Amino acid sequence: MLENDISIALVHYPVLNKKGETGSSAVTNLDIHDIARLARTYGLKKYYIVTPLEDQKGLVNTIIEHWTVNKGGKVNPDRKKALEIAEVVDSLEDIRKDLLNNGFDPVFVPTTAVYRENCKSFVEMKNIMSKEKKHYVLIFGTAWGLAEEVFGKSDYVLEPVKRNSDYNHLSVRTAAAIIIDRLLSDR
Amino acid sequence: MLENDISIALVHYPVLNKKGETGSSAVTNLDIHDIARLARTYGLKKYYIVTPLEDQKGLVNTIIEHWTVNKGGKVNPDRKKALEIAEVVDSLEDIRKDLLNNGFDPVFVPTTAVYRENCKSFVEMKNIMSKEKKHYVLIFGTAWGLAEEVFGKSDYVLEPVKRNSDYNHLSVRTAAAIIIDRLLSDR
Repeated sequence: MLENDISIALVHYPVLNKKGETGSSAVTNLDIHDIARLARTYGLKKYYIVTPLEDQKGLVNTIIEHWTVNKGGKVNPDRKKALEIAEVVDSLEDIRKDLLNNGFDPVFVPTTAVYRENCKSFVEMKNIMSKEKKHYVLIFGTAWGLAEEVFGKSDYVLEPVKRNSDYNHLSVRTAAAIIIDRLLSDR
Repeated sequence: MLENDISIALVHYPVLNKKGETGSSAVTNLDIHDIARLARTYGLKKYYIVTPLEDQKGLVNTIIEHWTVNKGGKVNPDRKKALEIAEVVDSLEDIRKDLLNNGFDPVFVPTTAVYRENCKSFVEMKNIMSKEKKHYVLIFGTAWGLAEEVFGKSDYVLEPVKRNSDYNHLSVRTAAAIIIDRLLSDR
């Protein structure tokens, strides 16, 4: 399993709100930075930020450009390297097209904080990845998690970061870090 | 190794600034939330936020109280449970006193993003913890990392989350998540 056989997608639509209805969430600045730095540290291929909302896309592009082509990159070259692999897209379908256009065969792997039937364990997922040798897009939901339709259109679902605890409420930033480390670390 | 044999300390003084000088950093709101949620999810004992600055201590206490005794806890009971284990203290010495007063024997384990001689590997640290059975305080630095004096006063230093990458620039939030998962997960 090579690190650059993995990309991350952070979804702001379609996600669930507090009432369990499908809608969109606002982009959080630190999600862009933290997950870009994580993806770059682990040598992942791309970090896609998914939102179809024009104002949100504009905001994300302003942040990415500040740190890559504008003055932020001169002040902090490490941040530039991280944000160079970040890209805002309208939808998961656009991620599929982008990867296919670049010669990759994308496999969608949504994550969940709530156990679902047919979830793959981390060990199972690592085995699948090393056997199939495709390009895996790990999909993370913001707000109250990914809408049901994302699971329906996906290839595998990864099990929650479950613990022997009555409490499982990680932020998407820390959950993404743990999941990427579990899939790519030898431990 | 029991989960509640571990606490986390997030240090805002003494830390290094960009020039490598010792000073203090400002508290980041999302550090309080993300690391409290992480600590609660993994069943840790306490999450200490370390700063001697009165205005910063006031800010942290306002945030903690909003989510524990004031209205935030009613709106989001899960957040309340997370922030109930968070506490602001002046110094690492205060953490030692607090734990000793509560019958724990604290062992200080600072973390670092840069390899240091005598660092313990994650496997070594897990072995030490399960043998000694003391209370371990994992210490994380903000800004450009912990000042040298913290390492001098500590028992063990944990190795960096190092990867086969030319790039290792995780946020303290994601580094803390990976480190806690590596120490407490069976994988």
